[in-house]
Amino acid sequence: MELIDGNQISREILDELKSEVATFSGRPPSVTFVRVGEDPASVFYVNKKQKVAAELGIKSHLQVFPETVTREELLGYIDSLNTDSEVDGILVQAPLPDHISDREVFNRVSPDKDVDGFNATNIGRLCQEDPAAFISCTPAGIIELLERSGVETSGKNAVVVGRSLIVGKPAALLLMMKAKTGNATVTVAHSRTADLAAACREADIIVAAIGRPGLITADMVKEGAVVIDVGINRVDDATKKKGYRIVGDVAFDEVAPKCSQITPVPGGVGPMTVAMLMKNTVLAYKRTQQA
Amino acid sequence: MELIDGNQISREILDELKSEVATFSGRPPSVTFVRVGEDPASVFYVNKKQKVAAELGIKSHLQVFPETVTREELLGYIDSLNTDSEVDGILVQAPLPDHISDREVFNRVSPDKDVDGFNATNIGRLCQEDPAAFISCTPAGIIELLERSGVETSGKNAVVVGRSLIVGKPAALLLMMKAKTGNATVTVAHSRTADLAAACREADIIVAAIGRPGLITADMVKEGAVVIDVGINRVDDATKKKGYRIVGDVAFDEVAPKCSQITPVPGGVGPMTVAMLMKNTVLAYKRTQQA
Repeated sequence: MELIDGNQISREILDELKSEVATFSGRPPSVTFVRVGEDPASVFYVNKKQKVAAELGIKSHLQVFPETVTREELLGYIDSLNTDSEVDGILVQAPLPDHISDREVFNRVSPDKDVDGFNATNIGRLCQEDPAAFISCTPAGIIELLERSGVETSGKNAVVVGRSLIVGKPAALLLMMKAKTGNATVTVAHSRTADLAAACREADIIVAAIGRPGLITADMVKEGAVVIDVGINRVDDATKKKGYRIVGDVAFDEVAPKCSQITPVPGGVGPMTVAMLMKNTVLAYKRTQQA
Repeated sequence: MELIDGNQISREILDELKSEVATFSGRPPSVTFVRVGEDPASVFYVNKKQKVAAELGIKSHLQVFPETVTREELLGYIDSLNTDSEVDGILVQAPLPDHISDREVFNRVSPDKDVDGFNATNIGRLCQEDPAAFISCTPAGIIELLERSGVETSGKNAVVVGRSLIVGKPAALLLMMKAKTGNATVTVAHSRTADLAAACREADIIVAAIGRPGLITADMVKEGAVVIDVGINRVDDATKKKGYRIVGDVAFDEVAPKCSQITPVPGGVGPMTVAMLMKNTVLAYKRTQQA
């Protein structure tokens, strides 16, 4: 069993990007983060993204709105970013308060600045296999992990557990694409799947992205499978100072011995998401400069 | 074995639409068809669509360009339709000549007039499960056939054979949607699938949309499966006056006895495509009138 080290692979990507950014003349790439409210996870993630951007020489700005921001105000701010030629990338951190539709906000971001890849036009471009697509960061990170770990996907059975817009669906679309790390026979399983174990047992590659701690157990995994664990679940743990620990959707200890390759949680897919965000930001910048 | 009669089901839908259109005051719904060149299949399909539109009280206009039309001229014409408030729906008949990109043309059609559902924004909306999506006509027709034939999809294994943008991918997205005729565990198989027979044998529902005559044989189909045959393939047949006959992707004679329900070719999915186009046109019209 070989561990797929997301920390190391993301480090490689960040180093590549850093070298590339250093060659840019004129203004640096720039990304604006929009956060609504003080959700601790959102605060943590946006901080992390800003730190990494700074390290790479990417300029970032954080705009924080209170929970009480109106839909009109938020959409108006996005419009102003869309037309600001100094802004290459825009990322609105989800979740948003209940009175504002995530989807409406994602779809308001200009497709050409949508470094998060959640805008309908970019998702559609992905479906069209259009190289102009910005691909959402977590699924793009999964493909990058597979590619850099030498995992063959063509003709293999891939089972994606979870059908979210953020991970499951785009990961499935990427895995079935006519592309180097694509051409897989892809099954999307989810909460309504009648026999998840049977579906998973057919898989050469499992992508677990359903948000249920330890759902994928050893009996569900074929000997030699590659397992990508996208889950980031908090479970109570009195032995930890914080009172919890973070676990994936895969029962790592029992599943790992059966795998040819597996990602840990943390240190697997997680760090890739930030790296791919930076990659998308640099891409957005390059497209602006070429236009 | 029960035959799913696409002629009858599409007739029902067309009758419903005709009654609905009759209640509209003011101008009728209107759709513009754009055809480039004289490809006999394109001529046939557009004629058919115009006839059905006329029967329903939908106004249609056909604009024909020669094969030599420039990209700029075609895109300019689409722009003029996009801003014409008397045009509710726009359909550009594929295939286009080699010097013009189908994708660029599809993506130029305003998403709000894209009754064909091929624009990236509408495909993305489908992925987002946004009710604002125009869903492409053939996959929408497949779902309508399943729904009106009482086929349960929730928790069932559906195998879509073919990963085209026009049928395979949207059909898969619809079958996995959180919706009445959705919630299936969906596998997308295709030309690179290592063991198509094994994949199909797991299926409660098979959607064959790969364009290979008779590819799906009896040994690949589980007893009691529902089979939807999207293939429209021309095979040589000296006994026919035209010298050919039309067959599906399913070896109907041997597969049908094993099925609980199956669509014939012709008379299955084919007529549904036109009916769903009319449904989308009426929808586009209603949205314009409400706006």
